[in-house]
Amino acid sequence: MEDDSSMATLSPTSRTEIRRHGDRALTDRSELYAVLAEAPFCHLGVVRDGHPLVIPTVFAADPDGPDRGGTLYLHGSVAARSLVEAPGRDLCVTCTIVDGLVLARSGFSHSMNYRSAVVIGRGRNVDDPKEKLHALARVVDHIVPGRSATLRSPSRKELAATAVVAMPLFEASVKRRTGGPSDDAADVAAGVWAGVLPLRMTAGYPVTSHDAAAVAVPDEVARLAQSLR
Amino acid sequence: MEDDSSMATLSPTSRTEIRRHGDRALTDRSELYAVLAEAPFCHLGVVRDGHPLVIPTVFAADPDGPDRGGTLYLHGSVAARSLVEAPGRDLCVTCTIVDGLVLARSGFSHSMNYRSAVVIGRGRNVDDPKEKLHALARVVDHIVPGRSATLRSPSRKELAATAVVAMPLFEASVKRRTGGPSDDAADVAAGVWAGVLPLRMTAGYPVTSHDAAAVAVPDEVARLAQSLR
Repeated sequence: MEDDSSMATLSPTSRTEIRRHGDRALTDRSELYAVLAEAPFCHLGVVRDGHPLVIPTVFAADPDGPDRGGTLYLHGSVAARSLVEAPGRDLCVTCTIVDGLVLARSGFSHSMNYRSAVVIGRGRNVDDPKEKLHALARVVDHIVPGRSATLRSPSRKELAATAVVAMPLFEASVKRRTGGPSDDAADVAAGVWAGVLPLRMTAGYPVTSHDAAAVAVPDEVARLAQSLR
Repeated sequence: MEDDSSMATLSPTSRTEIRRHGDRALTDRSELYAVLAEAPFCHLGVVRDGHPLVIPTVFAADPDGPDRGGTLYLHGSVAARSLVEAPGRDLCVTCTIVDGLVLARSGFSHSMNYRSAVVIGRGRNVDDPKEKLHALARVVDHIVPGRSATLRSPSRKELAATAVVAMPLFEASVKRRTGGPSDDAADVAAGVWAGVLPLRMTAGYPVTSHDAAAVAVPDEVARLAQSLR
């Protein structure tokens, strides 16, 4: 992809430098791709009329995409202002996976175990038909791995109604907290309970639509449900 | 709280008006409080040096708080730039609860079932000691209901190290998608499977810290774990 020596590590600029809890910073680019692969959706931040706006949305990351550091794809209706305004502007995409509640002996030491990725970069409108199809398939496969290959191709009308925005994965930071609470010795001596409540996203059984009652749940959906059981 | 007639409903300004998928907009203020109560954490958006920055953080909402529409509290280290810079600036706090993957017969109709709340408002530094203690207790109780009453009070040193920022809950929008996929008749006729994969955050069993092995898991933690089983 790139021969830039800063490609292997994250935080190549001050905008994504981690200043607080530097011990929680992960610096390997593969950690970024891992968090992005696991997070089911992201929060997209834009600046609108001078104020911040944060909206949840689906996405896909392509480490081999054409942008520096790889490509993150967002999509939405051509009528969605956040997408229409995105090309040429700085965007921030943040993905967070919560792994547990850290329940300490003091309110001060309460925390969460999590993995989060913050990507900052300029939006690029994807108008090349081949890249657009690729991006849309990646977004579907991000939700359910292997699903895009089982579906018909997007129609010309659907493609015209859908905006795809790309951003480079170059400027990014990843943070992770693991382990139990860190309490003062005096609080430990007081004999109060402390620990972690593990949290994770789980799936129920697939609910088949009433108008597909005669059709078996496809393999890729069954596999995903099983992996999130 | 307020006698403003717009208090009962959301989206009092154009900044939080929902333009896309208006059918997904919830307009009752109680829906906002419900989403904020259930979301374990939020994503805070700020504008820094002209670009958007989105970070995950814990929070608490107090519908009876002193700000217009109630108060949302954020907290963090006094060394955290996003907190230090927040007072007097516009912030955006977004909470998203994912309820399921909507798996349609076309990539275009894939979606998610979710509830999300977007709050935009100006940050206010909380320096009144009583409100600060109240806010910090609400943040702990937001994570584990009832827990703050079981912990010692924050020390003077802890309070000095912690910044609390409030923002009004006045300007907000809430969106919700429920139900199955909405497919074109031709796609339904093609006999492809469609449905929903329900998703939810679940808790495992509490993991007691090694230095608290002799202490029983407290009631409020056991209750929370049970409610997320």
